[in-house]
Amino acid sequence: MNTINNPQRKDWRALTMRPAKPAEQLEDLVSEVFSEIRKWGDVAVKKYTERFDKIKLDSFLVAGNQLKSAENELSDELKSAIGSAINNIEKFHASQAEENQIIETTAGVRCWRESRPIESVGIYIPGGSAPLFSTVLMLGIPAKLAGCKEVVLCTPPDKNGIVHPAILYAANQVGVDKVYCVGGIQAIAAMTFGTETIPKVDKIFGPGNQYVTAAKQRSQLQGVAIDMPAGPSELLVIADDSCNPAYVAADLLSQAEHGVDSQVVLLSTSQSVVDQVMVELEIQLSRLPRKEMAEKALLNSKAIVLNSIFECIEFSNLYAPEHLIIALKNYMELLPDIVNAGSVFLGNFSCESAGDYASGTNHTLPTQGYSRMYSGVSLDSFIKKITFQEVSEKGIVSIGKTIEIMAETEGLTAHKNAVSIRLDTIVK
Amino acid sequence: MNTINNPQRKDWRALTMRPAKPAEQLEDLVSEVFSEIRKWGDVAVKKYTERFDKIKLDSFLVAGNQLKSAENELSDELKSAIGSAINNIEKFHASQAEENQIIETTAGVRCWRESRPIESVGIYIPGGSAPLFSTVLMLGIPAKLAGCKEVVLCTPPDKNGIVHPAILYAANQVGVDKVYCVGGIQAIAAMTFGTETIPKVDKIFGPGNQYVTAAKQRSQLQGVAIDMPAGPSELLVIADDSCNPAYVAADLLSQAEHGVDSQVVLLSTSQSVVDQVMVELEIQLSRLPRKEMAEKALLNSKAIVLNSIFECIEFSNLYAPEHLIIALKNYMELLPDIVNAGSVFLGNFSCESAGDYASGTNHTLPTQGYSRMYSGVSLDSFIKKITFQEVSEKGIVSIGKTIEIMAETEGLTAHKNAVSIRLDTIVK
Repeated sequence: MNTINNPQRKDWRALTMRPAKPAEQLEDLVSEVFSEIRKWGDVAVKKYTERFDKIKLDSFLVAGNQLKSAENELSDELKSAIGSAINNIEKFHASQAEENQIIETTAGVRCWRESRPIESVGIYIPGGSAPLFSTVLMLGIPAKLAGCKEVVLCTPPDKNGIVHPAILYAANQVGVDKVYCVGGIQAIAAMTFGTETIPKVDKIFGPGNQYVTAAKQRSQLQGVAIDMPAGPSELLVIADDSCNPAYVAADLLSQAEHGVDSQVVLLSTSQSVVDQVMVELEIQLSRLPRKEMAEKALLNSKAIVLNSIFECIEFSNLYAPEHLIIALKNYMELLPDIVNAGSVFLGNFSCESAGDYASGTNHTLPTQGYSRMYSGVSLDSFIKKITFQEVSEKGIVSIGKTIEIMAETEGLTAHKNAVSIRLDTIVK
Repeated sequence: MNTINNPQRKDWRALTMRPAKPAEQLEDLVSEVFSEIRKWGDVAVKKYTERFDKIKLDSFLVAGNQLKSAENELSDELKSAIGSAINNIEKFHASQAEENQIIETTAGVRCWRESRPIESVGIYIPGGSAPLFSTVLMLGIPAKLAGCKEVVLCTPPDKNGIVHPAILYAANQVGVDKVYCVGGIQAIAAMTFGTETIPKVDKIFGPGNQYVTAAKQRSQLQGVAIDMPAGPSELLVIADDSCNPAYVAADLLSQAEHGVDSQVVLLSTSQSVVDQVMVELEIQLSRLPRKEMAEKALLNSKAIVLNSIFECIEFSNLYAPEHLIIALKNYMELLPDIVNAGSVFLGNFSCESAGDYASGTNHTLPTQGYSRMYSGVSLDSFIKKITFQEVSEKGIVSIGKTIEIMAETEGLTAHKNAVSIRLDTIVK
């Protein structure tokens, strides 16, 4: 981890740059898979599963009894942990539902919004070294709370052609309707167009590698919505003398172990804090099973000493981190100044992994500086808000003239007429 | 306008199809303009303005005194209308701000969301036959209410190289910071990368033709957010015997006059209502200045007689209209059944043009069936919500074990360690 001391302000932006991604040319491949799956449906899904996952599957749909029997394969301890996490995630996301609020903007003109669930949503859960059942909770729970009618989940087969029981158990617990053992570009394409087995959905959620990311971009062009643009995970920590350097080091490592392209940043006003964290980092790193990955991620990472906490916050806003830990004594006073971040962890006991699993907040968050303009996943991500307006006779008399003049100036006579014809009848 | 009587349910989906758009190959052009503007900045913006708008501009920035003096060119009547519209739009959008709500998900674990403005936003206002100053209000007002620091507006020069004073006046009234006389792909590219004159923004809003739409898609790939995918405007009306056929005809025409690719749909349980509307349509159409455009749009349009109001609502949900007028007596009872629509107009006096200008709701809405998963523009479009969590010593003791077990099962040891190291210190 590089340490940088009081960098000049003109160099700040360069310091917020994420590790450059290799410019992969995936467009041709994604385009091929999409057009084949659109044309051939399940047959093409099977073909690409065989090609990319090296496995031949007769059926993608995970049978209902498999979903149910998954619980027999998990320890009671794990099931109880999942239950607690569900409880917290449900509580927080349920609180995000909004009451309708009718506004009379002018006498006789009432306007309001009502939420409606997105009817059909697809959740993608990546495969790889570990079964990300926590993401099943983070996406499945708000989908069901929102009232989505159809919630389906795609996840790649492991090398034995099956899905990890923790994923199946989590899916079953949160009420996912169907689980399909399909991954990668082919899963996203199947949910984009629909096949004989897999339904076409309105919106696709979930993390994935560069293939999945490219496929989600493509599905957007096909009229499907996606949760947000994806990128490698990140953490920025702001720490002062009140922090516990061992905790900070543990938090930095928890992010660094995600992948070689993860990035962690430590900001402090104190060189001594940075030094202590570095010592702890070495000690804790040496004991990690995913040590190699974390080590590579730390090569992309920086500790920066700045002049003031105010500068730290300013730098953090410029960086716009996915996760932000504020290990400062007076964190509450600083909250109004934090303007760009996905999820913020306050004080010495709010470790990032709390939010990853069980505090109740969502862990699907904007990376790569996207927290400048995107929120993380929430109940809102699974609904849309429809505006309603009820204009009475009195109401159209109040605002009619305004509409007529504006429509006329815009050269839209029929817009004006729609008002005039009403005003004429009322006056008569 | 084609009339279809009780179509079979299997044919419904085909009837919801929008007029096919000509498959324009704009990618190469958009790619060229983007790469030139990224490289050469203002020089390239000038080059493309000369090429596409046939005008040579020395400076794009509209001077502050021009913004202010625009008011001298508008009638008092128009300024007063704009004032009334601003008042209603402000009232409705201000009501969309959300109070923070702290949820204690477990003893010692407090979670909440706080809204922050997107710092820099760009508004695009198309040129063409009429000055769309109403869209300036619809985008500028929520941007300022949200607290966006920098709100810039791009709009193409007219043939004399200037911007219509109604656009300048509206921009000045709602507090837009800078207006640039730049349109088309070059405007979107300039706001995507930033040039010497035009700032790089975080999110781009506003309607436009196919070039602007393609450019906004491209800017998304460059890390800029956009309001929503765009398409031609639409209106669906559900009417029964309680409707006024002349009003319905006027509403259909107000949508049809937008462009030849607009679409209107009339649903009713009554052939007689449809017949009366058709008669009125002919009469009113003949008097319209934009008659030719509306006539062509009506060729894409349909009146459909269905068996029941329930079927009408079901068809409408399948169509997912941008605008929906419910000209039915008992509209309030039906609201819960309306699940896909951008903005809904209730009763005989709620004409669509009320929402276009002055009821207070936003007129930037999802088209092409996108109301299945997108909301129209609102205050929410200009903010993001950051999640915060404050876990106390007691809190980490409550949820620590849950996190440890879940992280371990996912194979993420460092995630587990971040909790264990805290629990160890507390127990000691």
